[in-house]
Amino acid sequence: MRLNELSAHEAAARIASGDVSSEDLVRACLARIAEREPSIKAFARVGAEAAIAAARDADTAVLSKDKDNPLRPLHGVPVAIKDIIETIDMPTEYNSRFYRGHQSGKDAACVSMLRSAGAILIGKTETIEFAAHGRLPVTRNPHDLTRTPGGSSSGSAAAVADLMVPLTLGTQTGGSVIRPASFCGVFGFKPTWGSISAEGAKLFSVTLDTIGWYARGIQDIALLAKIYEISSAGEPTLTGLKLAYCETPYWDRATADGQTAFRSTLDKLRAAGASVTELEFGDEFSAINDLKERVMRGEGRVAFLNLHHKAPDQLSPGIRARMGRNDDLLLRKALDDAAMLRIAFDKTAEPFDAVLTPAATGVAPEGLHYAGDPIFNGLWTLLHVPCLSLPVMTGEKGLPIGLQLVGPRYADARVIAAGRGILRMLGR
Amino acid sequence: MRLNELSAHEAAARIASGDVSSEDLVRACLARIAEREPSIKAFARVGAEAAIAAARDADTAVLSKDKDNPLRPLHGVPVAIKDIIETIDMPTEYNSRFYRGHQSGKDAACVSMLRSAGAILIGKTETIEFAAHGRLPVTRNPHDLTRTPGGSSSGSAAAVADLMVPLTLGTQTGGSVIRPASFCGVFGFKPTWGSISAEGAKLFSVTLDTIGWYARGIQDIALLAKIYEISSAGEPTLTGLKLAYCETPYWDRATADGQTAFRSTLDKLRAAGASVTELEFGDEFSAINDLKERVMRGEGRVAFLNLHHKAPDQLSPGIRARMGRNDDLLLRKALDDAAMLRIAFDKTAEPFDAVLTPAATGVAPEGLHYAGDPIFNGLWTLLHVPCLSLPVMTGEKGLPIGLQLVGPRYADARVIAAGRGILRMLGR
Repeated sequence: MRLNELSAHEAAARIASGDVSSEDLVRACLARIAEREPSIKAFARVGAEAAIAAARDADTAVLSKDKDNPLRPLHGVPVAIKDIIETIDMPTEYNSRFYRGHQSGKDAACVSMLRSAGAILIGKTETIEFAAHGRLPVTRNPHDLTRTPGGSSSGSAAAVADLMVPLTLGTQTGGSVIRPASFCGVFGFKPTWGSISAEGAKLFSVTLDTIGWYARGIQDIALLAKIYEISSAGEPTLTGLKLAYCETPYWDRATADGQTAFRSTLDKLRAAGASVTELEFGDEFSAINDLKERVMRGEGRVAFLNLHHKAPDQLSPGIRARMGRNDDLLLRKALDDAAMLRIAFDKTAEPFDAVLTPAATGVAPEGLHYAGDPIFNGLWTLLHVPCLSLPVMTGEKGLPIGLQLVGPRYADARVIAAGRGILRMLGR
Repeated sequence: MRLNELSAHEAAARIASGDVSSEDLVRACLARIAEREPSIKAFARVGAEAAIAAARDADTAVLSKDKDNPLRPLHGVPVAIKDIIETIDMPTEYNSRFYRGHQSGKDAACVSMLRSAGAILIGKTETIEFAAHGRLPVTRNPHDLTRTPGGSSSGSAAAVADLMVPLTLGTQTGGSVIRPASFCGVFGFKPTWGSISAEGAKLFSVTLDTIGWYARGIQDIALLAKIYEISSAGEPTLTGLKLAYCETPYWDRATADGQTAFRSTLDKLRAAGASVTELEFGDEFSAINDLKERVMRGEGRVAFLNLHHKAPDQLSPGIRARMGRNDDLLLRKALDDAAMLRIAFDKTAEPFDAVLTPAATGVAPEGLHYAGDPIFNGLWTLLHVPCLSLPVMTGEKGLPIGLQLVGPRYADARVIAAGRGILRMLGR
């Protein structure tokens, strides 16, 4: 195994033991990026020299370490950050004309916490313009260069999938973490809304925006949950998996191979001994995606109004088209309806270790002009629930499809534990 | 009247007509600041040279103006910004040890919109540390230098009250806009939550944080509502004021002079022909301030966790003391209860032009060690409703007390219109 293929927790353990140097790891990741980036285009920017310098410092710290002062959990491990999240030592450009070369004066809160955990910033990853609408990045899906990696966290998902870096941060307002995880065949996690400060990430829809991350294994997903002090309020002692599944009101939008992959995975879990019962939404959930759209549009208009006042022609048509005044009382109704659906969903989901649901409609669509349909993501984002995508299914041409696990708000640890259990049952 | 005493809309009109130059106005404000700042200490920083240069540019634009291209609504008008809100050309320090000299790379969204409206940044105003807990500013109340101006938007309220600048921005998470408005005898407005992007303002509690502003007249409050495109969804044609009043579950915490001032103002309005009926909260509102506290504490912990990981000793004890883990399921319950109270309050308040309620417990307390009790503010912040403080009452020693008007979410324009009507009835 080459060093760039190590997971984050393996890399951290080997660095701490002196078996591997951070510099060698960072150089391996940079070599992989140099080799593959012309095809993948995952990065908006790579900071090779600063990353190597930081790795050397990390290695020095390992040599002089004090056994009473253990190394931090990501000591010397390179990470990459979606380019709508501010970093003090690297520009943040949002794939926007407004912010070419924009240098923020501080790290976003979520970046600061990774640095406090010892991580090294290796680069900024490509994104859809402001992680909203408009300009798509040029990033390609590592499993098929003619296909989209999904969006808006396109580069973060692709970089992890292509073994360029073990961990990346993304954001989800609609389906921007989970859908790319599904398309790229990596692990993706979006915690309960409000669990991580979104300060320093581009604000799009305050009710929906959530920081999330990508990794190549469930242990790394759990490691970041620990670093961010994500809730373990709902953590159970799993005694045989008690699962539900939810096809959502949008099942018909899943592709045939997507539907087949999902249902056959349920069968495999049943065969392996899991209890898998259907969780049906009440009628009040029938228009949940419309509520999400209304919230995203109303709050998105507010989020971009300053740029629209400043220089509307610098916003892409995709954002400009959404700047018309909406009915505020309909927005209010959508916010209120969503609040009540959260209460209802949590109650329904509470008895289960996790609720299984599609992570995407199917495999990544062809072409780079469309980041794919977020229909199986927006409802969960609106419900504020933790979402985990496991790369355990395949569809057309053997391309990856994610299995999404969700649970009640703040049951993040339970959902991750259920993810481990499912991987075990599926022999992964 | 000296130029620094002009309201923003008067100043803008006189600049546009060529009657007054922006430079003279800015110099008058700077002179007032130079004269009074040693006593008031409203400013964290003043940018005299840049403001004068911007004023000269504004004056040049007036001379060369194209009649088809009218001047912007705040063309050449100086404003000051609370120092937890980022400004591209002036440091943002949050009254925090973490951010001495911190230079952001962009304007906060709310600042950008003022600039697009033609305003000139004259300085950054003093704040409680991160507008949260901890270090208090040294700002004094212009009405009595031995008293607090309130907080956390201490400098913004005091600067407007002391005729240093016509308009300032603040923020409210508990009572940080309305309480200082009451204590300093100025107009203060907090719009419906979510109406203005909080991007670039320090994030404290995402469910509560709201941008607001101070002015010396209701027309300036309305002018900013127009610039920010605040909702007019609830705008009525007022035909005689139909008012309600609400003493809240916390009436006993108002001082005797505060209670007397409030009740005698209701009598005056009745005598002037307004309908003023009592709006009583149902039992479900009895612990509303506890809900606000739980939300603020739970979300505040998340907001400061990155700094706590980085260097806990650089956070003041007031913030550090709130960093312990809370029960996430109680936070969830508080968020859900608040959502339901919003629906209930909007319905109750809908028939009225405005609901009158105390803006503060009474006059500004003595001393600078305590910014006053926000008990009459936090519940409204949690309810997300528009709040307007009118400087129409006095208490002990003739010190100012604000009359607070609130209304359903998105009835901002209606509340402001009711404010105009009340001022007229009270002969102001």
